[in-house]
This record gives sequence, C-alpha cells and structure tokens, in this order.
Amino acid sequence: MAQHPNFSSFLQHPNIKSQNATTAKDQYKFVFKPIEAAFEGVTELKKLHMLIKKAMSLARAPISTNKVGAVGRASSGRFYLGVNVDFPGLPLHYSIHAEQFLVANLALNSEEGLRQLAVAVSTDGIEFGTPCGHCCQFLLEISNAPEIEILIRSKHVEGSFASLKCLLTDMYTPDRNLPNGTPLLLEKRDNCLDLLKKRDNCSTPYSNHLKWVALDAANNSFSPYTDSPSGVALLDNDDIVYRGWYIESVAYNSSLGPVQAALVDFVARGRGKGFDKTVGAVLVEKNDARVSQEGTAKMLLETIADRNCFFKVFHCYVMP
Amino acid sequence: MAQHPNFSSFLQHPNIKSQNATTAKDQYKFVFKPIEAAFEGVTELKKLHMLIKKAMSLARAPISTNKVGAVGRASSGRFYLGVNVDFPGLPLHYSIHAEQFLVANLALNSEEGLRQLAVAVSTDGIEFGTPCGHCCQFLLEISNAPEIEILIRSKHVEGSFASLKCLLTDMYTPDRNLPNGTPLLLEKRDNCLDLLKKRDNCSTPYSNHLKWVALDAANNSFSPYTDSPSGVALLDNDDIVYRGWYIESVAYNSSLGPVQAALVDFVARGRGKGFDKTVGAVLVEKNDARVSQEGTAKMLLETIADRNCFFKVFHCYVMP
Ligand SMILES: [Zn+2]
Ligand SMILES: [Zn+2]
Repeated sequence: MAQHPNFSSFLQHPNIKSQNATTAKDQYKFVFKPIEAAFEGVTELKKLHMLIKKAMSLARAPISTNKVGAVGRASSGRFYLGVNVDFPGLPLHYSIHAEQFLVANLALNSEEGLRQLAVAVSTDGIEFGTPCGHCCQFLLEISNAPEIEILIRSKHVEGSFASLKCLLTDMYTPDRNLPNGTPLLLEKRDNCLDLLKKRDNCSTPYSNHLKWVALDAANNSFSPYTDSPSGVALLDNDDIVYRGWYIESVAYNSSLGPVQAALVDFVARGRGKGFDKTVGAVLVEKNDARVSQEGTAKMLLETIADRNCFFKVFHCYVMP
Repeated sequence: MAQHPNFSSFLQHPNIKSQNATTAKDQYKFVFKPIEAAFEGVTELKKLHMLIKKAMSLARAPISTNKVGAVGRASSGRFYLGVNVDFPGLPLHYSIHAEQFLVANLALNSEEGLRQLAVAVSTDGIEFGTPCGHCCQFLLEISNAPEIEILIRSKHVEGSFASLKCLLTDMYTPDRNLPNGTPLLLEKRDNCLDLLKKRDNCSTPYSNHLKWVALDAANNSFSPYTDSPSGVALLDNDDIVYRGWYIESVAYNSSLGPVQAALVDFVARGRGKGFDKTVGAVLVEKNDARVSQEGTAKMLLETIADRNCFFKVFHCYVMP
C-alpha cells in the first residue's frame, strides 16, 4: 500500500490523550481531523471501520430501516462520514446512498480527492466490501477513481484495501468525450453562470439571499454530460442556510440531484434537525437546460419540508 | 462454455435460406426466434453482437444522442433487444438503460431467465463489455445473475463470454433477507392484489379496461424490499394497450418505475410510434404503500404523452 505521511504524523500529537473521545457536541459530526479520528479508534488506515458505528447511527432511512454507513479519507487527510437517506412516500430514485452522501460532502467541503473508502455491507457494521453498482458508477466520476482504495473486511479477516480498479474487472469508465481540460468531479470548476433577472418583484430578503447562495452552488455543479448545472439553497427555522449542487453521472440514473446534495449539507451541518424544519428553498438552473430539476425538486420539498416552506426557481445563463 | 442445445439445433432448419433477412415489418422487432436471429447473423453465440446495430437504431435518446443497444438470449432460446430511452426536460433518473429495457421486456414476455448478454460500450457498436454499475446492480435481482454470460469483444479481439460473477469481484449481491421462497426477478409471482373499489363513478370504458390491465400488471410487480407493488396500463391512439410493472432493486435507486416498464412495452410493440400518441394511462398501487409512484408517473406522462391524455390512479390491497 502507498505511504500516507500526513495520516500517521498526527499520532505524535501531544494532546492525544487529553480529550474526551465523544462529547455531546460530537454526536452529529460528519468531518473528522486525523487526530479526532484517532480518538475514535482510527489509529491506522486499516482501522477506518472504527468510525462506522458513528456513521450508521446518523443514517436517515425510514423506508429501508437499514442504516448504511460509509467512512472515507480525503486527500487532505480529513475523514468524512456518509449515511443513507431515503424519503417515505417517494419513489426510491430520490434516495441518497451513503457513498454518494460522502462524495457530495467532500465536494461541499472543497476536498480534491478521495483516497480510502470503507462501506459497511452487513447490517451489523462488521463486514466491509465493494459499494453497490449505483455507487461504483457514481465514484467513477472522480478523476482518480480507479485508485480509490476500498476496505475489504469480514468477521474473521482483518481489513485490507483493494483498489476500485481491481474490484471492477473491465470497469465501465465514463466515456468522457469531454472537451480537453474539463474538470472532473472534485476538481475545481466555475460554470460562469449569472442570474437572468437579478431582481424579482416578489422576492423577500430571505429568498434574495438564498438565490445568490444557490447561484454560487450552481457554479460548482458538475454536469458535463447534459450541460444542465443547477444549485439549491435551503433555509431552516434557525436561519441557517444549506446548499448543494447537481452532480451528474455518465450513466445518467446514478446522478445526484441538487436538492439531495443540499440535504447532504443539511444532515452534515444540521445537528440532527429534521427535514421538516426547512422553511425556504431556492433552485437556480438554466432556462433552456436539457434537464430541469424543478418538478422533482418541488415534489421532494413538498414531501419533506415545513408545509409553509417557500420554493422559488431562478434561471441563469452562461456569461459570455 | 456450457452447451446450449436449443440454440444450435435450429441451424438445421430447412427453411433457413428461404426467408428474407430484413423486411419492413421487421424494422421495429425486439424479439427474435433463434432462426430469425440466425438470419441477422447470430449463427452462434459469439455472434450475439450481430443484432446490435438493429438495437441501436431503435434507441430513443434525445438527451444523450448516444444510442445504446443490448442483445440478450433468454432461457427459452429467444433473443431480445434492449435500447436506452431518455426524456428531455426531466431529471436523468427517469431514463431507461438498454439492459434494463431488455430485462423488463423479458419479464413482460414471461421469460424465466437471461443466459447471455451483449452490451455495446462504444458508440460505433463494435466494442462490447460489462454493463454500467446501475445495470449490473439491476441484473443482480435475477436469480441466476452470477451466471449470466457477458460478451467481451473489442475491435481486434473476437468475442468471448465472461460470467457476471467473474467481472464483479466481491460482487454486491442483494442482501435478500426475504422470506423463504420469495420469487426473484423473472420468477413467477402473484402479489394477490385486488382493487379497493371495483367501480368508480367517473370511469370511462377505456379507463375501466385499463385499470384491470394495470391491476394484472401490479400482480406481477417485483417489490420485495418495500412491499409497494404497482402496475401501469397505457392506451395509444389506435386503442392498443401496453402495460408494465414496477421492478425494484435492493439498491433502491436502480429500480425501474412502472411507467418506464410500460414504456418498454410501448417501444417494443408500438412499431416506432411516438410517446405523444399515449392518450390514456392508469396506475394501480397500494393505498398505504411506503413508496408511491403517483407523483413521478404524473410528471413523466405530462412531459411525454398527448396533452389530453387522461391519467387515473386506482388503489389496491392484498387479498387476505
Ligand atoms: Zn450504493
Ligand atoms: Zn446501464
């Protein structure tokens, strides 16, 4: 296995014994510095699974009741949790898988790569293996995807890592066919979008602020296959703003919608708050896009948000 | 490779030279008897790819403009084509992949298994390989999935078959956790559903007929993970009725919706007719189901069907 210098160095940190492993504040934590991960037992990479129980406890899966967790280590050295999220009443393609959650959260935190990934494949959180096909396909949008190391671990066998490339023989890599230099997922991008109408007559201070946040999100959106970037901003009952952007998969159906991405932010920073505390939502998308998120965004929000939640859509264009 | 007796036997058929390879009637053909496939060049299994151009020409992919085709051989010995279908304006998770199309069509034709599968992975239809992750995951719902033989073929290398089991190391097989004896995808099933209200006041003769077709479809629906079976019946402008049923994936997002399944029937039997020739639609689903298809079914039909298309929803229950 490759050396991971910035991982092991923190183990010499003088304060490593002086902090409490879990505080109430930590209960809803989705991002861990190396030293914080070590307190949870991740003292070496093979112990990535030591954070899985924490992840699984944070899942929001009322339909499946099967709480799935994922733990990943980003190129920065920080550790991220991913959880599955599903939505009672709605078709299952609205669901967010734990691995998608994790990758979206990497993107929202400006992480540039995913190095190691542990996905629990048994409900007791003891066995770890290859992500499901939907997630493998989604992961392939990351530029170093073939090198992502997946933890393989069973009840009786200590953990080891296998690269995604080794796990998927004859891997269906995206036929990128993209213009040279197109940034891939987790690479820095700016879609150069601006709002078509900067003022609208019925805007409130809230929706006005949210539309700029959603525009900024849309500018980070990864939609190289249909050129239909979009972003969403959500407001909760404590005036906290969350945002997320559409992440596209070459295999279409494995894409992550912009509301889902914003809900990743909501779960990751919302400290256990329910989705029904969402009181405002704004979607920014292109006027003439081949793919519009408006209808499904509305349907999802009507199902989960506060019944008085406002939902506004603003259109944007690519600045010449 | 295993022997395929019922495949090679037809080659001795006396009429094999007496028919024309392609007639106008054949242009929209999605199911081929062995002898018909042989006329198209599939004289041995390794030549499964000889039907791919036919499949690709039938794709309906206005968003991607990338026509994907698949050819499969069912356990009956018949050959099936699959094509990708996408829907401009709607999010990409509404799309149907070629492999899903093919499997849904197997189900609609009461086929009990899929033996060989060829999926074009290059846009020129010359290279064949592993289905995308979304489809691999979907295929795993079939009981003999690990044994399905996938054609691997490139420009310079003649075709050979590799089992799905060999292509996906550490395959994410569905954690079935299903009651003993639960039939898997393509196995015969009856969900024992009946309509809650057999009469409704505002039904027309058409919607009355369609509701019984949709109920019958719902009785075939494969939804072992959320127990939310559903079926759809569609009517076109020539009074032809199509039907399809919801097919669920253990990985949730890889499921195929009931309208999509009915559109597979529409494409497979509709002889090139556009979706805008759909003038009526009925969805049958359970009243209290954890997953309701109503909202997305409505959105999809509003986007593609005739603007005066009626859409009715009837609820069903499990007969005690
Ligand atoms: Zn997954
Ligand atoms: Zn596919």
